[in-house]
Amino acid sequence: MDLKNTIRDIPDWPKKGIIFKDITTLLKEPAALKTASELIYDQVKDLGITKVAAIESRGFILGGALALKLNAGFIPVRKPNKLPADTVKIQYQLEYGTDTLEMHRDAIVPGDRVLLHDDVLATGGTAAATVSLIEQIGGTVAGCSFIIELGFLNGASKLSGQKIFSLLKY
Amino acid sequence: MDLKNTIRDIPDWPKKGIIFKDITTLLKEPAALKTASELIYDQVKDLGITKVAAIESRGFILGGALALKLNAGFIPVRKPNKLPADTVKIQYQLEYGTDTLEMHRDAIVPGDRVLLHDDVLATGGTAAATVSLIEQIGGTVAGCSFIIELGFLNGASKLSGQKIFSLLKY
Repeated sequence: MDLKNTIRDIPDWPKKGIIFKDITTLLKEPAALKTASELIYDQVKDLGITKVAAIESRGFILGGALALKLNAGFIPVRKPNKLPADTVKIQYQLEYGTDTLEMHRDAIVPGDRVLLHDDVLATGGTAAATVSLIEQIGGTVAGCSFIIELGFLNGASKLSGQKIFSLLKY
Repeated sequence: MDLKNTIRDIPDWPKKGIIFKDITTLLKEPAALKTASELIYDQVKDLGITKVAAIESRGFILGGALALKLNAGFIPVRKPNKLPADTVKIQYQLEYGTDTLEMHRDAIVPGDRVLLHDDVLATGGTAAATVSLIEQIGGTVAGCSFIIELGFLNGASKLSGQKIFSLLKY
């Protein structure tokens, strides 16, 4: 199965000139969903992962399934003021302005080997901020996994030293 | 394993007088995550589910895993202006004001038997709106599954005629 055939191109979304890669057409096909999750699992299964930290909200979709397959725990990385207990926060730069992510401070214990998961690696700002958060609370980032990597945006350069696994590259 | 022991009570969150049931402490424990997903799967495995429609964003965490276990497709139900292709929308009443949810119009095909999944059934407004959306695009709601049901808020009354499966009742 060529999973790229299940990705839908949306021109001019979210703004003019961008061709958005829509994964909902992959997710809604049972065979494609299964193939994608198995391929990602195969990429990361030998990393000794104990926790999967997934980025809100599309990262949650396969992040939960990956945690289950890996016999790991699931950790949500969320937008500000969504997590109810004590959190660590990081503010990071966007093209215009800044954004903030939070994790629960007790999400990770020393010794945890964490898989960062998100649907798309674009400029890498969100993923790099999440790596910092994970390390700040004592976790080791064992790998960074994405369904799609937009190689022309060079996000991997912001994750230097990290093992990057992407299923579909553009 | 008593899964209720893995749920954390957060007093006065998101506002004074509310005791929030925090599921992140369940999700981060591999054994609890696995038990929860297997118990939910057992509740719904014989319903002939072809799609799992999960509500943004905490519903995505087990929604993706459930779709995989059921050999079904995954459908995100999202806040406004998050889905890139043609959508159907529904506006519904909150305690103060209104909220809106969207699904892709092509997410469901006639004959689809849909499992609605969210983390919590509270007043039922969000779930009832999602049932309407699913039916509007030709799906049959085969069941509604929640990790937690806050029985004292009587959300089930807004889902009359539906099969409701909740893992933990309060």
